[in-house]
Amino acid sequence: MSTTSPSPYKALLFDVFGTVVDWRRSIIAELTQFFGQRGIEKDWEQFALDWRALYQPAMERVRSGERGYVVLDTMHKENLMQLLPGYDLHDLSDDDIDHLNRVWHRLQPWADTLPGMYRLRKQFMLGTLSNGNIALLANMAKHSSIPWDAILGSEPAQGYKPEHKVYLKSAAMFGLTPEQCIMVAAHNEDLEVAAELGFATAYINRPDEYGVAQNKNLHAEQEWTFVCDSMTELATKLGV
Amino acid sequence: MSTTSPSPYKALLFDVFGTVVDWRRSIIAELTQFFGQRGIEKDWEQFALDWRALYQPAMERVRSGERGYVVLDTMHKENLMQLLPGYDLHDLSDDDIDHLNRVWHRLQPWADTLPGMYRLRKQFMLGTLSNGNIALLANMAKHSSIPWDAILGSEPAQGYKPEHKVYLKSAAMFGLTPEQCIMVAAHNEDLEVAAELGFATAYINRPDEYGVAQNKNLHAEQEWTFVCDSMTELATKLGV
Repeated sequence: MSTTSPSPYKALLFDVFGTVVDWRRSIIAELTQFFGQRGIEKDWEQFALDWRALYQPAMERVRSGERGYVVLDTMHKENLMQLLPGYDLHDLSDDDIDHLNRVWHRLQPWADTLPGMYRLRKQFMLGTLSNGNIALLANMAKHSSIPWDAILGSEPAQGYKPEHKVYLKSAAMFGLTPEQCIMVAAHNEDLEVAAELGFATAYINRPDEYGVAQNKNLHAEQEWTFVCDSMTELATKLGV
Repeated sequence: MSTTSPSPYKALLFDVFGTVVDWRRSIIAELTQFFGQRGIEKDWEQFALDWRALYQPAMERVRSGERGYVVLDTMHKENLMQLLPGYDLHDLSDDDIDHLNRVWHRLQPWADTLPGMYRLRKQFMLGTLSNGNIALLANMAKHSSIPWDAILGSEPAQGYKPEHKVYLKSAAMFGLTPEQCIMVAAHNEDLEVAAELGFATAYINRPDEYGVAQNKNLHAEQEWTFVCDSMTELATKLGV
């Protein structure tokens, strides 16, 4: 893309967990520290993966209509409570539980995320198109200096990806059509839905998101509009 | 308030038009320039006041249920189209109309706004509790470097102040109770509703918002939690 022709794109809408932030290492680091201070050692990598694995079934209950819309913070807490006994973790106070659950509000960006986004924000509106709720994403942005122009996605759209309304309402909340937006994600399945709806697509390769356990999203599976190994590469490809 | 005791407040929620930005002077300046280049002179101060005067009746149709929720951009445009013939303004292209209507996306902050907000953001979450829609407020923030942590208020709450749900949902979207939030506004009537709902209140005196036409909100009419002449004074009173 030439830097001299005006971009057809006005906004970039980002998946967050795995694309913008490294949830796995962030959770392992916090749990290791929190429980280490209490003399407790467990396989925190497996704990992080187990916690994350409860995410899709919990959202599916909302998508299917079995349960009304609840924010992700609530589901994260329910899933945490469900996991603790199996790891023989008892006697945590309510404050401890809340502190642990809010680790999702303190996730750290990948090394290339902020350098890329601070370039991209000069030319484009940057919004979330995540299943995270507003408090979670706004607190994370404050904690990690992520420069969102607006928190969009699940909570204001009152749904969970891959429900189409989450994508369509996010573009509309910026006053834009899908064609004026680029969906940025490290997950082929997320981009597939966005592309069907008319969005341009940017795949960011994150083959280490799940660590050695990762068995999908190891590479771009289609000819997305942009295929990149980092946010900085995306900024370069967009001429900013 | 002492700077050594922890603040009971986690977030500041701001009215925007008149409190954060000087809509009147911003509109006058843009209209003067836009039409001046076309050799057209009118009383743009009166035009700005007339445009703003159509705001409450337009929202009232939504609040009353006569009309479903539409974003403020749409009502601003309808109101603009209604005003133009009376000012003998014809033959504007669709692009001209859109450009003029988006003057609301380019409003300038009062001189104390950014110095105050950049101090406040170090300690508090900053959100909008405005009747402006997300695109309007996010574009304005980008244009004028206003450091919101999230755009809340009317559009994600699907209502218009003084409907209570707009206040209550804005606190909830930050994961907070009203008591953990300070409503910041230059309008006594806005703070009155917020106080009833449990919010702390900060009155920012803007006696020049409407110019010589201003006949209310010339001073604090109740003992609000904080009464200030500027955002910087509010920052000082909050110890940041």
